[in-house]
Amino acid sequence: MADTLAVNLNERSYEISFAQEQSAALREIVTQLRAAGRKIVVITDANLAKHQPDFLEQAVGDAPRLVFEAGESTKSLESLGLAWDFLAAQRVDRSGVVIAVGGGVIGDLAGFVAASWLRGVDFYQVPTTLLAMVDSSVGGKTGINLAAGKNLVGAFHQPRGVFIATGLLNSLPPREFAAGMAEVIKYGLLGDAALFARLEKSPLTVDSADLPQVIKRCCAIKAGIVQADERETAKEGGRALLNLGHTFGHAIEQVSGYGVYLHGEAVAIGLVAAAQLSRKLGHVSQSDAARIETVLQAHHLPVRLREPLAVGELMAAAARDKKVRAGLPRFVIMQALGTAVTRDGIEPALVRECFAGIGAVE
Amino acid sequence: MADTLAVNLNERSYEISFAQEQSAALREIVTQLRAAGRKIVVITDANLAKHQPDFLEQAVGDAPRLVFEAGESTKSLESLGLAWDFLAAQRVDRSGVVIAVGGGVIGDLAGFVAASWLRGVDFYQVPTTLLAMVDSSVGGKTGINLAAGKNLVGAFHQPRGVFIATGLLNSLPPREFAAGMAEVIKYGLLGDAALFARLEKSPLTVDSADLPQVIKRCCAIKAGIVQADERETAKEGGRALLNLGHTFGHAIEQVSGYGVYLHGEAVAIGLVAAAQLSRKLGHVSQSDAARIETVLQAHHLPVRLREPLAVGELMAAAARDKKVRAGLPRFVIMQALGTAVTRDGIEPALVRECFAGIGAVE
Repeated sequence: MADTLAVNLNERSYEISFAQEQSAALREIVTQLRAAGRKIVVITDANLAKHQPDFLEQAVGDAPRLVFEAGESTKSLESLGLAWDFLAAQRVDRSGVVIAVGGGVIGDLAGFVAASWLRGVDFYQVPTTLLAMVDSSVGGKTGINLAAGKNLVGAFHQPRGVFIATGLLNSLPPREFAAGMAEVIKYGLLGDAALFARLEKSPLTVDSADLPQVIKRCCAIKAGIVQADERETAKEGGRALLNLGHTFGHAIEQVSGYGVYLHGEAVAIGLVAAAQLSRKLGHVSQSDAARIETVLQAHHLPVRLREPLAVGELMAAAARDKKVRAGLPRFVIMQALGTAVTRDGIEPALVRECFAGIGAVE
Repeated sequence: MADTLAVNLNERSYEISFAQEQSAALREIVTQLRAAGRKIVVITDANLAKHQPDFLEQAVGDAPRLVFEAGESTKSLESLGLAWDFLAAQRVDRSGVVIAVGGGVIGDLAGFVAASWLRGVDFYQVPTTLLAMVDSSVGGKTGINLAAGKNLVGAFHQPRGVFIATGLLNSLPPREFAAGMAEVIKYGLLGDAALFARLEKSPLTVDSADLPQVIKRCCAIKAGIVQADERETAKEGGRALLNLGHTFGHAIEQVSGYGVYLHGEAVAIGLVAAAQLSRKLGHVSQSDAARIETVLQAHHLPVRLREPLAVGELMAAAARDKKVRAGLPRFVIMQALGTAVTRDGIEPALVRECFAGIGAVE
């Protein structure tokens, strides 16, 4: 029996469903939609078809599928064009439905395809990685990357529903599971001291009995934030809090070259930098910062750059961050373990010190 | 002194400003936005730079400009990629502003660029053709074409303001002015018998003293419809009414090959077909239908296909129309001159007769 969580966004409200197995539930939705004369198309990745050959067959049957290579490079203008042409060839009309089955890359791409097709059709998210389950499948952010940066174009487009099948994580490579854990740890740090304490007590693994509850708790924290600030327009706090560690992390990803670090790995190092920044600003203590590093390491995540990067390049990348408004960078800092705030006008010298602290060089 | 019309869409409300000349007003907006630290970029077309060399200089000064070739082929995936790369190169952040200066092609493309850049930045519409002034610049529909059809992808994204400078119409080619008149006549037919009577009395020309008032009246009709049905979700009537003549017109454009007929020319012929359909359904009279043809011809618009097209191909194209929901085509019919309604489930045989009536062949 599936557990559910409501995301309340007025006429864009939806439920997230959590269960070990979801193919029967998905099949029921597909059958219902088709009975109402609605065309269903599936966008997925090659990894899923390889590792979970039965899942797609059971969940979506013979619905037309567009299969992309797994990996960040799929979130491209080229893929967008291919997907739009696919929907055209399948004659998806305004009553049509896109089902995204995959990790964050597929969810973001397919979500933007659904947002823009005929100026918006319904879509469902079926996240298959830990990162997608706790983060990218919830909240309605969709989009693709450009050569100039990640997620530079896209749309806010809420799914009609999210189906989280935790059993799919059994075939997830350990490095991908660890990357997802960086976001789980982030949720503890920005909004739930009890969750952080749980992760400190013993590392969460794919075999942990409470894995589904932890995933649900992360979704609940994110849903609460998204409900209060759906389009990230809050002057302070709000959705920007979800970027704890990300301003640093995005700079690391960009300067090292996308793919060198998984997104979650860059976020893990970014959380260390954010902890240092929070400490320098007089909030968290040295021992709190050490606890954060310990928890990250216990979950097999990096806490320092594997190879040194240039501070100047990282600073330039941070200044290009998409969260920059009218030229001023905004950072998320922890006031304590479990509480975060946004802060504008941080001294560049402090940021440089934090980059140096994670192993960047002059 | 500019005349204004408010478009009331809650937090997305904006004003349409009407004047002979608008460059000073635009320059003031540009100056204000820049003073607030906001980056301005302009997307425009080569025709405007050629025919109105001073306007852009006076209106937007040295703001970075991206210039596309005029014409429907600019509304492409390729242009979208170029425009996104341009905004990236200009480092447009979330406070940035896109100004679209051109006809409907530029407005639709630039609007979608603004809708999708960083998931949405502000934009202003400066329409330079009659068609764009009365139709595409108002209402927030943005998008591009695919090989499979026009406007298949896009977004609803309302501008922050629309600046209509009727003086720009002096350099508009007569064929383009006539094409815009098809939409003006459409507004009379779907919602304003007095406007239709005005057009019947004497043709509206670029020199007509009441041209600005007629343009404003068209915008007011459209704004009223858009306010009631912003995202075209009404079960009947609503925004779909704006498609009077368009289901036929789109089929003509598609089967003849885009560019053979200007959009407005295809709509003109489509209005004749819609009048015939309305007559066959027992609404308007034979003499009303004749009056519609007379007004279209007085405005130098075609009322029959210039070269015969195949009825079967036109029917197939109509069935692919993006307004189709769950496989059923929807038509807009006139109940009288000045009143239109949407109607589902029209007999295909009737539609065939209407295509035959405008010169299509078996």
